[in-house]
Amino acid sequence: MAESMYGLKRTHRCTEVTKEEIGSTVTLMGWVQKSRNKGGIVFVDLRDRSGIMQIIFENGDIDGEGFEKAGRLRSEFVIAVTGRVEARSGAVNENLKTGEIEVRANALRILSESETPPFPVEENSKTREEVRLKYRYLDLRRPDLQRNLIMRSQVAVLVRQFLANEGFLEIETPILNKSTPEGARDYLVPSRVHPGSFYALPQSPQIFKQLLMCSGYDRYFQIAKCFRDEDLRADRQPEFTQIDMELSFVDVDDVIDVNERMLAFLFRQVLGVEVQLPIQRMTWIDAMNRFGSDKPDLRFGMELTDVSEVVKGCEFAVFKNALEAGGSVRGINAKGQGAMPRKKIDKLVEFAKGYGAKGLAYIAIQEDGSVKSSFAKFMQEEEMKSLIEAMQGEAGDLLLFAADKTKLVWDVLGALRLELARQMELFDKDEYRFVWITEFPLLEWSEEEQRFTAMHHPFTMPFEEDIPLLDTDPGAVRAKAYDIVLNGNEIGGGSVRIHQNDVQEKMFEALGFEKAQAYKQFGFLLDAFKYGVPPHAGLAYGLDRLVMLMAKEESIREVIAFPKVKDASCLMSEAPNTVDVKQLDELGIALKAQESEQ
Amino acid sequence: MAESMYGLKRTHRCTEVTKEEIGSTVTLMGWVQKSRNKGGIVFVDLRDRSGIMQIIFENGDIDGEGFEKAGRLRSEFVIAVTGRVEARSGAVNENLKTGEIEVRANALRILSESETPPFPVEENSKTREEVRLKYRYLDLRRPDLQRNLIMRSQVAVLVRQFLANEGFLEIETPILNKSTPEGARDYLVPSRVHPGSFYALPQSPQIFKQLLMCSGYDRYFQIAKCFRDEDLRADRQPEFTQIDMELSFVDVDDVIDVNERMLAFLFRQVLGVEVQLPIQRMTWIDAMNRFGSDKPDLRFGMELTDVSEVVKGCEFAVFKNALEAGGSVRGINAKGQGAMPRKKIDKLVEFAKGYGAKGLAYIAIQEDGSVKSSFAKFMQEEEMKSLIEAMQGEAGDLLLFAADKTKLVWDVLGALRLELARQMELFDKDEYRFVWITEFPLLEWSEEEQRFTAMHHPFTMPFEEDIPLLDTDPGAVRAKAYDIVLNGNEIGGGSVRIHQNDVQEKMFEALGFEKAQAYKQFGFLLDAFKYGVPPHAGLAYGLDRLVMLMAKEESIREVIAFPKVKDASCLMSEAPNTVDVKQLDELGIALKAQESEQ
Repeated sequence: MAESMYGLKRTHRCTEVTKEEIGSTVTLMGWVQKSRNKGGIVFVDLRDRSGIMQIIFENGDIDGEGFEKAGRLRSEFVIAVTGRVEARSGAVNENLKTGEIEVRANALRILSESETPPFPVEENSKTREEVRLKYRYLDLRRPDLQRNLIMRSQVAVLVRQFLANEGFLEIETPILNKSTPEGARDYLVPSRVHPGSFYALPQSPQIFKQLLMCSGYDRYFQIAKCFRDEDLRADRQPEFTQIDMELSFVDVDDVIDVNERMLAFLFRQVLGVEVQLPIQRMTWIDAMNRFGSDKPDLRFGMELTDVSEVVKGCEFAVFKNALEAGGSVRGINAKGQGAMPRKKIDKLVEFAKGYGAKGLAYIAIQEDGSVKSSFAKFMQEEEMKSLIEAMQGEAGDLLLFAADKTKLVWDVLGALRLELARQMELFDKDEYRFVWITEFPLLEWSEEEQRFTAMHHPFTMPFEEDIPLLDTDPGAVRAKAYDIVLNGNEIGGGSVRIHQNDVQEKMFEALGFEKAQAYKQFGFLLDAFKYGVPPHAGLAYGLDRLVMLMAKEESIREVIAFPKVKDASCLMSEAPNTVDVKQLDELGIALKAQESEQ
Repeated sequence: MAESMYGLKRTHRCTEVTKEEIGSTVTLMGWVQKSRNKGGIVFVDLRDRSGIMQIIFENGDIDGEGFEKAGRLRSEFVIAVTGRVEARSGAVNENLKTGEIEVRANALRILSESETPPFPVEENSKTREEVRLKYRYLDLRRPDLQRNLIMRSQVAVLVRQFLANEGFLEIETPILNKSTPEGARDYLVPSRVHPGSFYALPQSPQIFKQLLMCSGYDRYFQIAKCFRDEDLRADRQPEFTQIDMELSFVDVDDVIDVNERMLAFLFRQVLGVEVQLPIQRMTWIDAMNRFGSDKPDLRFGMELTDVSEVVKGCEFAVFKNALEAGGSVRGINAKGQGAMPRKKIDKLVEFAKGYGAKGLAYIAIQEDGSVKSSFAKFMQEEEMKSLIEAMQGEAGDLLLFAADKTKLVWDVLGALRLELARQMELFDKDEYRFVWITEFPLLEWSEEEQRFTAMHHPFTMPFEEDIPLLDTDPGAVRAKAYDIVLNGNEIGGGSVRIHQNDVQEKMFEALGFEKAQAYKQFGFLLDAFKYGVPPHAGLAYGLDRLVMLMAKEESIREVIAFPKVKDASCLMSEAPNTVDVKQLDELGIALKAQESEQ
C-alpha cells in the first residue's frame, strides 16, 4: 500500500514556500492535517514541522489514479505532493503563514497510511494528559508542543554558542558514579562485574566540576542530565537537565556578569525580549522581609510590612504570644479588596493554614472608612489606627496579618501575596522580571538534627568579613551564594566555593563534622584540594524550568519530549518494567518479597 | 595560609599576553609549573589552560615580604601575580608561545599551596596509567590531556553549530528507559516506587529518534550518553557518547551528503585538514574482497587477491579442502618482505591463528627469483608460477595465503594486512583517509541460532529491487545501511529505516519472528508506526573514538575526562561501591549470597 519516495526529493518545507514561488513547481512532504472534498475538488491541509500548506487536487491537473488516491486521504496519512504554486483561489487565510498561496497538485504518493488517531492532532488539545502521554508520539505532533521543543533546542544551541564564545569548555562528566550518603536519594545501578556494589546516577556534576577547576580547565560548562529519586511534584522529574557551569579565578560579580549577559542574549535571540542589565540585586534578608520569599515575583508590589513594633503593646493574644516567643507580626495590604466577601476571606485563611499558619487576622476597610476586623475587639482604637497607618491602609483596602515564628510568617504571607496577586490579576503575563538574590545565610539551624546544616552546600564560601562569626554566631554568617529568580521562580543558583583548607575546616566545625567524616563523604574532592586549588565559583540552571517559563507553560512536561508522570513511570514505554530473573542473577541481586505478600 | 583573591582581577590568561603588552601591567593567575632561584632572582613558570608565562621575582621590584613568599613557591601552588610585561632578559624560549617576554612581578598572592604531587604534571607522562587515573584531577592538568579535552569540546560545539544550521533540532531522550531483551546487556536501575520493576539505561536513542521522526520533527540530533554492560575492551567504556541523528524524507544520498559536509567542516575547523568531497564509497562486498574488512584502512594498498580459481586443481590439501567445503583461497603480497626471517614468518602464522586460521601458507620470493615456500612440495611448478603471477609476485616479495571459509579468510587476511602495514610502516600517521562502506548485507546467518539475524537492526530498509529476494535468497538482500570509516576505524554508521508495514512484516518473517513476538519487543514503536510514518534514515558516530582519532591518541581514555578501567570501575572515585542496606530495602532488592560463600 505504502509507496516509496525513491527518486523523489522534497524541495521545501511547507511554509518555506512563499509568494515568490508562484508559478514554480515544488515537492512537499508531510502529514495530512485535514482533507475534504468540495465540489469535486479535494482540498488537503498538508502539515510539517514548519506549518501548513493548502494543496488542491483537481482531476485533470492530476491523472485519474492520482485523483482517486487523493480522495482516499485521511488525517495523518504521510504524503509527497508535487505541484504548482498558485495564488489562493478562495479567500486568503490570515491565520496561515502560507495563507495567500496554495499548491495545485500534479502528482501524489501516499508514503504511509494512518489509522484514525485516538485524539486529534491539534493545538491546545483538550485531550486528557494521561492519554496524550500514552500516545506521546502523536501528542508530539501538536504544533504547540513542537514549538516548545524547537524553542528548547534553540535555547540549548544559543547557551552553548554564548558560553563557548566566553571561553567555556563543555566537558562531559560521568553518569555512572559513586553513591554519597548526603543529599537526596540516589538512583542506584547494580554492578555486574562487582556483585554487591552499585553505581549511583549523579544528582548534579558538582564534585566533578570542582575537580575540573582543580585541574585547571578554568571555565567549564555542561548541559547535564541529573537524577533524583524523590517523590515527584508537579514540576519535578526523576531525570532533569541542568545548564551547569563553573569558573576559576572569579568572585561573585564575575559570575553574575557573564550570566546576565547570557540571559540577555538568550531572551533577545529566542523571544525578542530585552532584559535590562544590570539585573536588580536583592539580599536574601530584604527579599524575605519585603516579599516573604527568597524567589520574589517582582512583577507586582504588595510588599510585606513588619508591624511587630506597632502591635507590641496590644492585648490580642495571637500577636502577643508570637512576639513573646521571639516571632513577629507582619501584614500585607490587598489594595481595593476591602469589600471582599467573608466567605472569600475565610478561604484565604484556609489557604494560610495550608502553609502552617494558625490563622490569619484581617482588617477590611470599607469605602466609608469603617472597618470590619477579626480582632478589633482585642485592640485599642488608637492601636488599630496606628496599625492601619503602618500598613498604609486606605478606604477599600483589605489588610491581612500573620503572627508566628518569623520564618513561618514569611512563608505564609509570601504564599498569600502570590495567591492574592493571581486573584487580583496583578501581573502581566508577558513581562519577564529578573532579580538576583544574594547574601544567603551560610547555615540554617536544623530542628530535626539539632545542628547547623549548609543552606547551599558545605563548600560554599562565607563572606570574608563574616568568617570570625563562624565561631560566635554561625547563623549570622552570610554566604557568597546567589540565585537568579524569574517571575517568582528560581531558575538558577550557585555560589563561590571555599578553596582554602583553613576556611573549609572552620566550615566543617560549624557543621559539627568530624574531619574523618568529612573525608568519608567528600574524599577524593578533599584529596584533590591538597594539590593547589584555584578560587572558583559556579552556577546551575534548571533548563526544563527555564524553557517552561520562556514558553509560558505551566508544567515542565510540556517542554520535555518524553516525560515521566508522578509515579516516575513513562506512560508510553511503560518503563520501569519487570526483567528476567537471569538479568538479576547476573547482577547478584534478588527481589525482596513484598511485605504485603508475606 | 591561603590568601583570598578578593579585590584582584585576572587581566589575561598566560599566553594571551603578547609582545604588544610590553610595558603594561598584567595580573595572571595559575599554577606554578616550576620555580628556581638563580643568583638571588626567583624564576617561576606560571601555567594555566592557555600555556606558560615566565615570571621574574626580584627583591626591590617586589617588596621583601613578597620576595620571601616567592622563595617559598613550589610546584602546583596556585598564585596570583601582578607585574610588568618585559622583553625576555635571558635567551628567547622558542618552545613557548610567550618565549620572547616575561613578567616582572611587583605583587604576589599565594591562593593555594600544594603538597608534592604523586607524579609530575608534564606532557607525555611516563607515569603508569593506573596512578594517573587514581589522581585523575592531577593527570587532567597535563597539557596533552588538556589539549584533547579542549579539542573534544570544540568538536561538540562545531557539530552542534553545523547541525543547527542544517535545520536539525537537538532533542533530549530519556536516560531512564525500559529494558528490552534484544541487543547488548542493559544496565538496570531498580525502581523504588514500583518495587520489582527496573529502568534500563539506553544502549542508544534508536527507538526514540525513530519516534521523533514519526512525530514530525524532521531532523533530530543529540550528543547522547549511551550505556552497555559488556566486558570492556581497550576502546570501550560502560558509558560512551554518540553523535546521533535522524532525518525524515531522505534516502541514502541525503544522509551521506550532510554528513560529508559535517566531517569536512569539523576537520577544517579543528585540524586545518581539508577532506576531499565527495568521500569515496565502496560496497561492502568490495571492501571484504579487497581488504578483508568492512572498515578498510585505505592509507595503503596491499589488497587481497582471490586465487581460488588459480589453485582449484592443485593437490595441496589445505587449499583443496577449503575449496571443496565452499570456502576460498586468498592471499596478500607483502612487497619487499621476501627476505623476512623464518622466525618472523612464524610469528605471522601465530598471529593468523589468533584470528582463527588453521595456518598460513607462504611463498617468499628471493632476490634471485628462487622461492622458499611452506607448500611448494604439494604444487606443480606451473601451478606455483600461475599463483605467483596472479599475486603479481616479484623478486623480493612475500606472498601469504589463507584458505578456509571465506568469512574467516577475510578476517585473517584483513588483520594480517594491518599487522604487516604496521611492521612495514606503510601509512602516514598524518593522513586522514575516509571511505563510506555501503550495500551491507541485510541479514547474516547465525550458526548459533540457526536463523538469519539483522546485520544492522530489524528496521533497516532493504534495497527496493532486492525485496523479492527476501523470499528466495535472504542472504543476498542488500541493506540501505552505511558506515563511515576513517583510517581503518568505523567512526559512524546508520541506515535508511523501513517505514512500510508490508516490508516490515516481510523482514520479521525473514528473521523468523512471530508478529506477536515483534510486538513484545518493539511494541510502542510499532504502535506509533500505525499512524503515519515518514521515510526516514539516520546515523550515529562514536564521539569518543572520533575525537581519539582526531587527537591521534591510541585509547579513548585519553579523550574522556573521567574514564573507567577494564573492570568498569573508576580508580579515582572508587565507583561502584557498596551502599547501605537501607537503600536496598527501599528499592525492594537484596544482595544474593555469593556462590563462593555458600
